[in-house]
Amino acid sequence: VILGLVGCGHIGGSLALALRQAGAAGRVFGADRDGAAAARALSLGIIDQAASVAEVAAAADVLVLAVPVLSIPACARAIAGALRPGAVVTDVGSTKASVVRACAQILPRFVGGHPMAGSERAGPDSADARLFAGKRVILTPTAGTDRDALGAVARMWRDVGATVVEMDPTRHDAVVAAVSHLPHAAAYALCAALTGEAPELAGLSGGGFIDSTRIAATPGAMWVDVFLDNRGPLLSLLDAYRDELARLRAAIAAGDGAAIAGLIDVARAARARIVS
Amino acid sequence: VILGLVGCGHIGGSLALALRQAGAAGRVFGADRDGAAAARALSLGIIDQAASVAEVAAAADVLVLAVPVLSIPACARAIAGALRPGAVVTDVGSTKASVVRACAQILPRFVGGHPMAGSERAGPDSADARLFAGKRVILTPTAGTDRDALGAVARMWRDVGATVVEMDPTRHDAVVAAVSHLPHAAAYALCAALTGEAPELAGLSGGGFIDSTRIAATPGAMWVDVFLDNRGPLLSLLDAYRDELARLRAAIAAGDGAAIAGLIDVARAARARIVS
Repeated sequence: VILGLVGCGHIGGSLALALRQAGAAGRVFGADRDGAAAARALSLGIIDQAASVAEVAAAADVLVLAVPVLSIPACARAIAGALRPGAVVTDVGSTKASVVRACAQILPRFVGGHPMAGSERAGPDSADARLFAGKRVILTPTAGTDRDALGAVARMWRDVGATVVEMDPTRHDAVVAAVSHLPHAAAYALCAALTGEAPELAGLSGGGFIDSTRIAATPGAMWVDVFLDNRGPLLSLLDAYRDELARLRAAIAAGDGAAIAGLIDVARAARARIVS
Repeated sequence: VILGLVGCGHIGGSLALALRQAGAAGRVFGADRDGAAAARALSLGIIDQAASVAEVAAAADVLVLAVPVLSIPACARAIAGALRPGAVVTDVGSTKASVVRACAQILPRFVGGHPMAGSERAGPDSADARLFAGKRVILTPTAGTDRDALGAVARMWRDVGATVVEMDPTRHDAVVAAVSHLPHAAAYALCAALTGEAPELAGLSGGGFIDSTRIAATPGAMWVDVFLDNRGPLLSLLDAYRDELARLRAAIAAGDGAAIAGLIDVARAARARIVS
């Protein structure tokens, strides 16, 4: 299988490395709009050849679009005319409804995908062949999805140790709004709210702060796209979160320990259900 | 040094274990309002003898009050009459202004303390002798604090591998409101806001969700007290956080990618300053 990688960053780079280590990729062609990133991916052994998007499309049996979600439709148009017959295309974007809708019209054998893995790091230097081991990958086929293409993409993810789950694209977006997009938005806003705090804070943060805000260290490029593309589900959850914060604030202001304890119990139960 | 432990939970138990392993504690007497917890601490080798609070006070050279913060003043009153001459008393509570004010009036050799370490776990079974290694401990002496007592408490924390920092009690409360109490409140509210979400979420959370909400798994007993006792600084920060969330929500609703990117940059810079 000749692999084509469009976007040689954290997720794309990790997938290429993992497929190579699993012996599941032959030659790997990589493109990146940032030429330095493609060169770095080449020198790190993530790809065998840095090429243009059209060259990658012409060479690959399986193409992975690992670019910010709002760039995916243009990327699909850029490769459409150059693809080999039978080539399978997938993506790793954090939203699926608009991506699948757009790509299905452009590419005959497209399968939407989203690995539930990642980190706050970015760029080819952060590529990690173990990133997907034991993690879930959501694939979002629709009635029109080519079944062979779906099988090929599912096999690719299983080859790197992931478990494949299928889900409707719209349902996917609602789920990740809750378990990923809301927590990222909350962590960014929390850190931004601490901008004016005095320098004594530096170095006094415990593990709780570090862990709970680690996702706020993620560079903004991909997250601007995610927040904009998934704004419907995300805005609803931000409103629910605002209301819950207001409830907690009111209980604290009123000195109502029983109300605080009740909210904490509800929170712990909800988390236990989601994380289990 | 005979150690007296009032409260045999996660922090108190970890400290006793760590002092024993460092060879810095002789006999350890432990009390807990939950008799089963004291018995468990005894069987785990955290304490040598389970006793009443008065017995612990009568036996110990150094007493550590490791109970929820709103229980500390009553605890101080309970031990005051039974203390050995020269006995040093400290605490591990997450707030300091009210604790230090109350205890200074009751105990002649009291030093307020707060280890910047912990986890979402609770009870003697979660005691971890390595919990404080490499961590900071904030001590909050005032003009009236006995200097020998301060030295003894600082030595105790250095014996378990921690670095001691001194800070004014009120300043301490403002700092921890930012790096600890606000993140805990935010994580509890976030999880509570997801209560109504569909069961598909279970098992699909990635590492980002698990890490960012881990602190929301902490049992509520100590946090109700912390939120109530530190409500002044915490309410101000909750308001700043509410405003920042509203700003992010407005940018997303307006489709303003530049505003979202700007907020993310501010958040990342603030976090880098605090965590560094």
